[in-house]
Amino acid sequence: MSEVEGKVRLYMSISLDGFITGPDDGPSHGLGVGGERLHAWLGDGGVDPASYRPADATDAEVFDEGMATGAVLTGRRTFEHAGGWAGDHHDGVPVFVLTRSIPDEPPPGHARYITDAESGVAQARAAAAGRDVMMHGASAAQACLVAGQLDEIELHVVPVLLGGGRRLFDGLPPGQVELELLRSLQGSGVLHLRYRVVGGGR
Amino acid sequence: MSEVEGKVRLYMSISLDGFITGPDDGPSHGLGVGGERLHAWLGDGGVDPASYRPADATDAEVFDEGMATGAVLTGRRTFEHAGGWAGDHHDGVPVFVLTRSIPDEPPPGHARYITDAESGVAQARAAAAGRDVMMHGASAAQACLVAGQLDEIELHVVPVLLGGGRRLFDGLPPGQVELELLRSLQGSGVLHLRYRVVGGGR
Repeated sequence: MSEVEGKVRLYMSISLDGFITGPDDGPSHGLGVGGERLHAWLGDGGVDPASYRPADATDAEVFDEGMATGAVLTGRRTFEHAGGWAGDHHDGVPVFVLTRSIPDEPPPGHARYITDAESGVAQARAAAAGRDVMMHGASAAQACLVAGQLDEIELHVVPVLLGGGRRLFDGLPPGQVELELLRSLQGSGVLHLRYRVVGGGR
Repeated sequence: MSEVEGKVRLYMSISLDGFITGPDDGPSHGLGVGGERLHAWLGDGGVDPASYRPADATDAEVFDEGMATGAVLTGRRTFEHAGGWAGDHHDGVPVFVLTRSIPDEPPPGHARYITDAESGVAQARAAAAGRDVMMHGASAAQACLVAGQLDEIELHVVPVLLGGGRRLFDGLPPGQVELELLRSLQGSGVLHLRYRVVGGGR
């Protein structure tokens, strides 16, 4: 990777007990039971991510960093639960959707389907043209982590125990992955932790 | 609870993916494969907890707070894996060991077995005589949390993904428990997060 290349950074809201949804998430209820709690630090928006900009200055700073990324790489589940962001996550940047099999229906707007994490990351990096790549979704993150293609992890740690739901870190192959805490920012009712993936173990 | 009463506070080292041991923990290997990584922020001590005092000033501050508690409440697994701290966790304070069934062999030194989380907490609070109660162990913490007897959670978040092991938060009944971040202290390669249990959900 050249030094001017942007970072691939996972952005996820997560409960202190490690869940990114509440229990019983499904097609009609992507965040599971009570999972909306995890996004309470964001504004009360619609399909357009820009409508979620938080009121708190620190939260808004972190949010704006995400909106300054040059490409989005997401798992298909997250993509579908978000209504595909109506084809435009922010500013018309390309959205790469990692899926096991390409659907017959083409994706909306600026989205495209990809089936391989490693080449998907390469495409997203190239498309971001020096800016960072925003990643979303547990399965996509795990695939990219295992492929050694995840540079950083930004967790929005919400002070709640959900007791059930979908875990961000689940099903990783055993083996330690060392991280380095780059930044800790306290927002309004949420703690933003940014880690660098140092590597190892796999 | 009167205002002069101390807090019951869980102290646990935990990986960013939520594990308090590595994989395959057992009687002969209480921390599991690679689980020692979670305690690397502590000094290289023996059975006596005081021998683990960290070199870093912030880490030492957090450690010293724990050593200033007036009683210890622990799960039996943690107790046995620590060799029962040879009967004296620190300063001869009483150690309450939560177990499903009382062993025939009496516990060493200042330790005593208890079978009920709620009355165990009451005994530990009384024994601490206004000082805080240090709690250890996932099962004990979950039992006390469900019983509404856990006041605070102090996590030493270690920047590593272990990919497997024993989770701190597992098997909690569904239902949200709200927390409040009271303090975030960055030590040497470990982040100390203190939360207050606000309650709800159960």
